[in-house]
Amino acid sequence: MAQSGASAAPVEGPLAGIIVVDLTRVLAGPFCTMLLADLGARVIKVENPKGGDDSRAYGPFINGKSGYFIAQNRGKESIALDLKNEGDQAILHRLLKRADVLIENFRPGTMARLGFGPEEMKKRYPQLIFASTSGFGQTGPYADRPAYDIIAQAMGGIMSITGHEGSEPTRVGASIGDLGAGLFTALGIVSALHHRNRSGEGITVDVAMLDSQLALLENAIARYYSTGKAPKPLGARHPSIAPFEAYRTQDSHVVIACGNDSLFRTFCGVIEHPHLADDPRFATNAKRSENVVALKAALEAFLTEKPSAHWLELFNRTGIPSAPINDVAQAIHDPQVQHRQIVLPVADESVAPLAVAGSPIKFSGFATPATRPAAPELDQDRARILADFP
Amino acid sequence: MAQSGASAAPVEGPLAGIIVVDLTRVLAGPFCTMLLADLGARVIKVENPKGGDDSRAYGPFINGKSGYFIAQNRGKESIALDLKNEGDQAILHRLLKRADVLIENFRPGTMARLGFGPEEMKKRYPQLIFASTSGFGQTGPYADRPAYDIIAQAMGGIMSITGHEGSEPTRVGASIGDLGAGLFTALGIVSALHHRNRSGEGITVDVAMLDSQLALLENAIARYYSTGKAPKPLGARHPSIAPFEAYRTQDSHVVIACGNDSLFRTFCGVIEHPHLADDPRFATNAKRSENVVALKAALEAFLTEKPSAHWLELFNRTGIPSAPINDVAQAIHDPQVQHRQIVLPVADESVAPLAVAGSPIKFSGFATPATRPAAPELDQDRARILADFP
Repeated sequence: MAQSGASAAPVEGPLAGIIVVDLTRVLAGPFCTMLLADLGARVIKVENPKGGDDSRAYGPFINGKSGYFIAQNRGKESIALDLKNEGDQAILHRLLKRADVLIENFRPGTMARLGFGPEEMKKRYPQLIFASTSGFGQTGPYADRPAYDIIAQAMGGIMSITGHEGSEPTRVGASIGDLGAGLFTALGIVSALHHRNRSGEGITVDVAMLDSQLALLENAIARYYSTGKAPKPLGARHPSIAPFEAYRTQDSHVVIACGNDSLFRTFCGVIEHPHLADDPRFATNAKRSENVVALKAALEAFLTEKPSAHWLELFNRTGIPSAPINDVAQAIHDPQVQHRQIVLPVADESVAPLAVAGSPIKFSGFATPATRPAAPELDQDRARILADFP
Repeated sequence: MAQSGASAAPVEGPLAGIIVVDLTRVLAGPFCTMLLADLGARVIKVENPKGGDDSRAYGPFINGKSGYFIAQNRGKESIALDLKNEGDQAILHRLLKRADVLIENFRPGTMARLGFGPEEMKKRYPQLIFASTSGFGQTGPYADRPAYDIIAQAMGGIMSITGHEGSEPTRVGASIGDLGAGLFTALGIVSALHHRNRSGEGITVDVAMLDSQLALLENAIARYYSTGKAPKPLGARHPSIAPFEAYRTQDSHVVIACGNDSLFRTFCGVIEHPHLADDPRFATNAKRSENVVALKAALEAFLTEKPSAHWLELFNRTGIPSAPINDVAQAIHDPQVQHRQIVLPVADESVAPLAVAGSPIKFSGFATPATRPAAPELDQDRARILADFP
């Protein structure tokens, strides 16, 4: 037992001592509880005995283990419980008696049918924070519908503004529908912990993937209200700041962003085309946004004469916000990302050299560990959990 | 003073009573403090007297006001302070004496040069949580570089997996580089509040946009380690679940997602093509992922015979996860989004009918308000702030 698993102590962090009972599967919920584990909480993952979390079956596989599962579940403990079985329900009650947080992502109503609904829990465990993360939330006409990331991305509007006009539909390349909901759920849970510190009262937290997508639409909502028309996808371009997009160079692309007029003027000096800053089409951010196609043509006319490396060296030296478009390998191996220890190896030799991203939140007083803890095998921590929660 | 502004009491929420002094501009920081305001904190936005936050000049404009600014700064108070002026510095100290959180997004080192660096603050205000959100973080070789959303999106790898293979570069259509960092910063701040409740000690929080992007790459990192090759953009398709993408219908597209084999079998029955579930190419999720092009062709062969409305009605009735690809207007006016009161009008008649997204976190005991509070004019709340912080 526990030889390769998550049986190390929780990482150090501001949530030290907090116990999270985690009934979630697949992505939004597990991402949320991974964030809580990275903040120092002890996360006990309760899985169904028949195979556990669905995502244990999702690729990519490394030495037979799901890299998908490991990336979201490292640093947690696992116990297999059949929530319809009385004996296993009694074990869950032992956990909940001492837990600070219960989180679940079943369809609304499932927890109540199992006897663990929020009202029942409030009566038995008034200290417990009861968090639900779901596709559509606990209320409303779609509450019972199933959802996956792409459902939230499609309904929530983000797919309609991502991609190029006229192209086939484009999903954000990471599951922002799930990850956004997971982040908001974590923020809700920790806010509820803060509230409980002062009031003694556990409250419920209800976060939906669809709602979270709307909350991440940014200025697209204001653009709709200002024009009455739904915004369209803009490729790599920003809707109201220019220059702020990807430009062709001799060998690839660079991105350049100037968020105000004085930075644009500096930029025009750096590229030795100071006349562009005086061109009436480009004199203000509003004018540049209007004439963004002409601006792109004017810039690419000379950017295409030299390779990206030339431009990036010049722009970095002169303080012009710019960057290469890194692929995932380049991003992971970037010197800054390495320095910040954001992507670290998993402490599980059987999947070496697998590394995973960790929490990007750095606190004074809590060091970033040198590796990420392993993910648990199904039911791996049963004995210890039963001993810890008599 | 205060006639149309943010001078209502903070909204009710778990962070009631928390005072946030907010020196941030543009997006990542202001999005973070808007989340804190939505959670009940009092947020005092400190702006430079020469025009205030840069984003007051960003479109879209509604009756002369920036919809961009309003969407991120509603519910905050504003005071204009010149941080290089001694008298104004003294006012900032009056605020900090009672504040719980100081948040800034200057380039690293700027706060120390102004006399408000984290070490100085720790000495004078040991209770204060000092949060920095920046492009690259407070440490490392790029710490001094400027950044905007597209810089983080480009360097962080998300642009390399978003879009269609061979297409021009594609940015996620909302500023996920900023919004991600804002969310992680908010989570860090509230976690630090929880820690302070128990230890009495204020700690620093350091979040970078680039780090946050890596933390949102999801399974793309595991895919790189499993194959040694950087993942490519996949259009609307999921890399390891199938079916999970956008499919053509007679009149548009629908998205369909089946995350396990039994759901796929149900789906094949619903569409009256049960033989697909027995086709060896499609028998398991792993097989379907391998044969995803053939699967798409098989499904579109009959999906294109009927319009999207037909399929969505059928799939909703039978519990198959599916959705239309909504534009922003359709997303806002969707019955579920309306029911959840996610997008609500701003309480500022001069910009009617502008509505903005609010926090998607619902708590028991704290009702969703019927409108979102207005955003402040520059320096609008000076008198009240000076009176409240003598």
